[in-house]
Amino acid sequence: MKSLLIVCDGMSDRPIKELGWKTPLEAARKTSLNQIAKTGICGIMDLIAPGIPPGSDSATLALLGYDILKIYSGRGALEAIGSGVKVSPNDVAFRCNFATVNEKLVVLDRRAGRISNEDASKLVESLQRIKLETPSVRFLFKNTIQHRAVLVIHGPKLSTAVSDSDPEKIGEKVLEIKPLDTSLEAQHTAKILSELVHKFHEVLKKHPINKQRVKRKLLPANFILCRGAGVIPKIRPLSELYGIKAACIAATSLIKGVCKVAGMKLIYVKNATGTPQTDFLAKAKAAVQALKTFDFVLLHVKATDVSSHDGNIQQKVEMIEKIDNMVSYILNNMDLDSNYLAITADHTTSLVTGNHEGDPVPIAIAGPYVRSDDVEKFDERSCAKGGLHRIRGTDLMPTLMSLLGKTKKFGT
Amino acid sequence: MKSLLIVCDGMSDRPIKELGWKTPLEAARKTSLNQIAKTGICGIMDLIAPGIPPGSDSATLALLGYDILKIYSGRGALEAIGSGVKVSPNDVAFRCNFATVNEKLVVLDRRAGRISNEDASKLVESLQRIKLETPSVRFLFKNTIQHRAVLVIHGPKLSTAVSDSDPEKIGEKVLEIKPLDTSLEAQHTAKILSELVHKFHEVLKKHPINKQRVKRKLLPANFILCRGAGVIPKIRPLSELYGIKAACIAATSLIKGVCKVAGMKLIYVKNATGTPQTDFLAKAKAAVQALKTFDFVLLHVKATDVSSHDGNIQQKVEMIEKIDNMVSYILNNMDLDSNYLAITADHTTSLVTGNHEGDPVPIAIAGPYVRSDDVEKFDERSCAKGGLHRIRGTDLMPTLMSLLGKTKKFGT
Repeated sequence: MKSLLIVCDGMSDRPIKELGWKTPLEAARKTSLNQIAKTGICGIMDLIAPGIPPGSDSATLALLGYDILKIYSGRGALEAIGSGVKVSPNDVAFRCNFATVNEKLVVLDRRAGRISNEDASKLVESLQRIKLETPSVRFLFKNTIQHRAVLVIHGPKLSTAVSDSDPEKIGEKVLEIKPLDTSLEAQHTAKILSELVHKFHEVLKKHPINKQRVKRKLLPANFILCRGAGVIPKIRPLSELYGIKAACIAATSLIKGVCKVAGMKLIYVKNATGTPQTDFLAKAKAAVQALKTFDFVLLHVKATDVSSHDGNIQQKVEMIEKIDNMVSYILNNMDLDSNYLAITADHTTSLVTGNHEGDPVPIAIAGPYVRSDDVEKFDERSCAKGGLHRIRGTDLMPTLMSLLGKTKKFGT
Repeated sequence: MKSLLIVCDGMSDRPIKELGWKTPLEAARKTSLNQIAKTGICGIMDLIAPGIPPGSDSATLALLGYDILKIYSGRGALEAIGSGVKVSPNDVAFRCNFATVNEKLVVLDRRAGRISNEDASKLVESLQRIKLETPSVRFLFKNTIQHRAVLVIHGPKLSTAVSDSDPEKIGEKVLEIKPLDTSLEAQHTAKILSELVHKFHEVLKKHPINKQRVKRKLLPANFILCRGAGVIPKIRPLSELYGIKAACIAATSLIKGVCKVAGMKLIYVKNATGTPQTDFLAKAKAAVQALKTFDFVLLHVKATDVSSHDGNIQQKVEMIEKIDNMVSYILNNMDLDSNYLAITADHTTSLVTGNHEGDPVPIAIAGPYVRSDDVEKFDERSCAKGGLHRIRGTDLMPTLMSLLGKTKKFGT
């Protein structure tokens, strides 16, 4: 018996006026999602706890069964690992943006005009040559997609207790990097990061690529904004916890990083982009294929979250309908007499606020031995009447693994 | 006001094909169980947490309100106490089996042909005379029923962190006893247990009883398999926690041990055997009688679990119908205008897998001041729609005690 878990990023929402006070899930045509709810057991789920908006990192760790309140150790390292960068235990990693600042270090654009991969790569070549004053410390700086990059600091006595330099708003000054506790490690790390950011700026502001960009009427990428200091969380892989072979199909670095840390195999799918233009069907096909080899497959779809953050109501409904089409393929090609299919969201993202919110998400599990309930539709309010009631994010994995016969008894 | 809690071991199950995708509880005729659901408040309950299969020891401790994740200390001591053996604090106790091994220590039968109480008692006489090399350490070895026995080790600096010698499979070699952590105590205990098991074997293999057994074409009981190292959990008795007089009616040693550790009086019932042939009515009569003296009575029925582990569908349904008959007597002889009657299971045992599973169990409570709900049937899916929603095992005792006016306010 195998289990496929489909996680639709930010798909859960609140009722909104423009949809006649329905949620996007309630408004969308979604025969296949309803089919899972109809044949399965449904409920609602607080990824962390009621009212607490989860990040995509903590939500995914919780979905994989990890006690996020105990093991969360920042986003940076997960993002870096997901981008294919090697991060060793105790390395401190950051998410970075190429940005444009003026001479007073006020942020003019947080994405340096969404700089091309090509330009960014050339700038990185120069940045990576910088020498730090502390010889025992090394760093790796790598661009990923467009303006995005990761920074990994390697050396003794580092800490994640350092503040971000990214003000996360246009028109505000770059923030000074400060230690967030009184430890020597935090002071040391803040000093190194400040030094790096300063040296990056010195190199970038006179870099030929940026001079060319200005000539081409493009914004110069003259500053590196850093945030989300993180180390690899100390967790045991799923193979060890449940004795399973697990795989992940996801386009976004963060989700890939989380899954890699959990010991899951990352499956590459061509044209899976993490955007509304992603190839939904290719992902569905890859998931069905993966179930032949793996006991547990996580299929992550980012598109719903993108529409939510953009406040694009029609696009969010459309993305749900595309997901429904993807699930239709899965239902037609997966044997639910001997396998389990679960669908949920990693958090509620409100079309109104554009933010992750603390409302629970709907969850449905179909398969041979679930105690099916009366729920007929997969949406926030229908699922709230289901047989699973209201569970926590960390309850899902034991629930699925118990159906697969993979959980260990507590006591004898 | 008094409260009777009926715990039917492993009664909860998953829907199964042979019963038209009903659970045994859904398929059984059970007018009296339904009567409790109809007049009472219902819900589902995770003994430990969603998806975590509980052992019978941890489940019963949870049902009595103890925080199992904090206090669980192994099964051996509970089993020993329930068998009437004295166990002092810090004694380490084990569940043991008389078994048959060949000269290479490969297990031929884990139960030594289900050796008779008589033969086992004679062997124990010789085993108890063995002297240990460490004079400060003493042991007590006692047979209970057939091949079953308990071993209690008494002395300074003992630990439960030792592995089992029981491979729990026929055709496999007896396991070497190893310390499970690096403490001196664990090493010391492993050494003593190894010495004992070796000396037991030396005595047993040339014992006249075993020579006779071989002549009678019976399997010789030439080895003692040990498992489940445990000490008495450090818990406060129910009398102290709630100011109640509590009693237990159970046939199995483990449940008796748990209840004794919780300070409950054990009530002996003739012909209550812990098997499908148990005298259900005698237990019901004893429970009704006990309510005259005790504030809280736990009535435990093992038969449903036996059928489940054996995968015997018809027998499980039949056992539920016998329990229904038992409950009918109780309903006719207990005043529910002034007392509370609760019924539940200690865990889900699947007829398909034969194992304890992590699915929640149904629970119903009837009595004068419960907020009765719309549920009309006592089964897994009906109860899931009840007014108790989904609670944890440790929530039940405070819920019952609150109805009896026995819980202490938290805060002022």
